[in-house]
Amino acid sequence: MELLKQRIMKDGLVKAGNVLKVDSFLNHQMDIALFSEIGKEFYRRFMDCDVTKILTIEASGIGIACVTAQFFHVPVVFAKKSQSKNIDGEVFTSRVESFTHGRVYDIIVSKKFLGPDDRVLIIDDFLAKGSALEGLCKLVQDSGAELVGAGIVIEKGFQEGGKLIRGHGVRVESLAIIDRMDDVTGEIFFRP
Amino acid sequence: MELLKQRIMKDGLVKAGNVLKVDSFLNHQMDIALFSEIGKEFYRRFMDCDVTKILTIEASGIGIACVTAQFFHVPVVFAKKSQSKNIDGEVFTSRVESFTHGRVYDIIVSKKFLGPDDRVLIIDDFLAKGSALEGLCKLVQDSGAELVGAGIVIEKGFQEGGKLIRGHGVRVESLAIIDRMDDVTGEIFFRP
Repeated sequence: MELLKQRIMKDGLVKAGNVLKVDSFLNHQMDIALFSEIGKEFYRRFMDCDVTKILTIEASGIGIACVTAQFFHVPVVFAKKSQSKNIDGEVFTSRVESFTHGRVYDIIVSKKFLGPDDRVLIIDDFLAKGSALEGLCKLVQDSGAELVGAGIVIEKGFQEGGKLIRGHGVRVESLAIIDRMDDVTGEIFFRP
Repeated sequence: MELLKQRIMKDGLVKAGNVLKVDSFLNHQMDIALFSEIGKEFYRRFMDCDVTKILTIEASGIGIACVTAQFFHVPVVFAKKSQSKNIDGEVFTSRVESFTHGRVYDIIVSKKFLGPDDRVLIIDDFLAKGSALEGLCKLVQDSGAELVGAGIVIEKGFQEGGKLIRGHGVRVESLAIIDRMDDVTGEIFFRP
C-alpha cells in the first residue's frame, strides 16, 4: 500500500535493535484518516470472504480494527491481555510472548463472542516474531470459527512471524513488508 | 441518547456489586454501527469547540475514540497504562486507581503528542469513581493544552466520579447516566 509506505518513510523512526517507531501515526497517536484508507484496503482484499467478525488484540490493534470494521459492517472483538473481574464465565485462552515488553501473558476472549458460525478476520498493527498472531489464530481455532485470514499493517519481513503463520496455511495480507532497516542511516527497505 | 439507553436495557447485565456488564456491545465485543451513532452524538455536542485532538485511555476507550475522531477529523492519542520499551523520551504521567482491576497504575502520554496548541476532547467508555478521567485531565493540564471537555458513553451517576470532575470545572457530557441498578430484578434506572 503505497500511501502507507510513504508515511512510514516520512514519519517512521528506525532505532537500534530493529525497532521501528511509528508512534506518531499508528500506535500511540493515531491518524484516523490513514486508518480509513487502511480499512478500505483490507476490505478490498477480504471483501469476498463473508467475514462475520473482526478479531484483534488490545491495545494498538483496536483502533485499526474498529475503523476497518466499518467497511465490513461486522462487530469487532478484542482479545484481552489479562483476566479482569469484568470477564466472568468461560473464555478461550492462549499464551503470548511479547518481545517488545519482555514478558509472557495470557490472552482471553469470552466464549460468547466467537463460535462455529463465525468467519473471522484477524487485524493487527504489527507482525514480527508472530507470537500474538499465533495466539489469536489459536483462539479462533479453539472456538470452531473459520479463520479467513489476517490483515497486518506492518510486517517485519526479516523476522520469522510471517513465514511461521503462512506456514500454518493462514492467509496473511500485510500492507507494508519491511525487508531491512538501517538504524545508522535511518533507511527502510520494503519488499517490492 | 435514546438508542444507547435502549441498548443498555436490552443487552446490559446488572451484577452484584454495582457491576454493569456491557461486554456484548461496548467493551469486549464492539458494535461499530452503534459506535458510529455515539461518535455522531459526541460531535453534535462538541462540534463548536475547535477540537484538535481526542485523548483516550487503553484499551476499551480506543475504539469509541477512533470512530468519534472520524467526525472531528482529528487524530486520537491514547494514554498507555505502563512504561514500555517503545516509548522513549519524555512523557506526561499520572497515577490512576482501577477499582475494576483492583490496582494502581501509571498512565503515560508522550510529550510529542500533547502541547499548548491543542484543544483536547477526552473520550472514554465509563465514568464511575472518576480516577481514570481525573488522570487524563491531569495529563492535559500538564501539557498546557486546553481541555474542552469529556465525552463519556456510560456514567454511573450513583458513584462520585461525575460530581468530582464537574466540580473541577470540566464539561462532562455523558450519553447515558445511570442513577440506580438492581441486581436482583436486573432493572436499570436512567437519569431523565
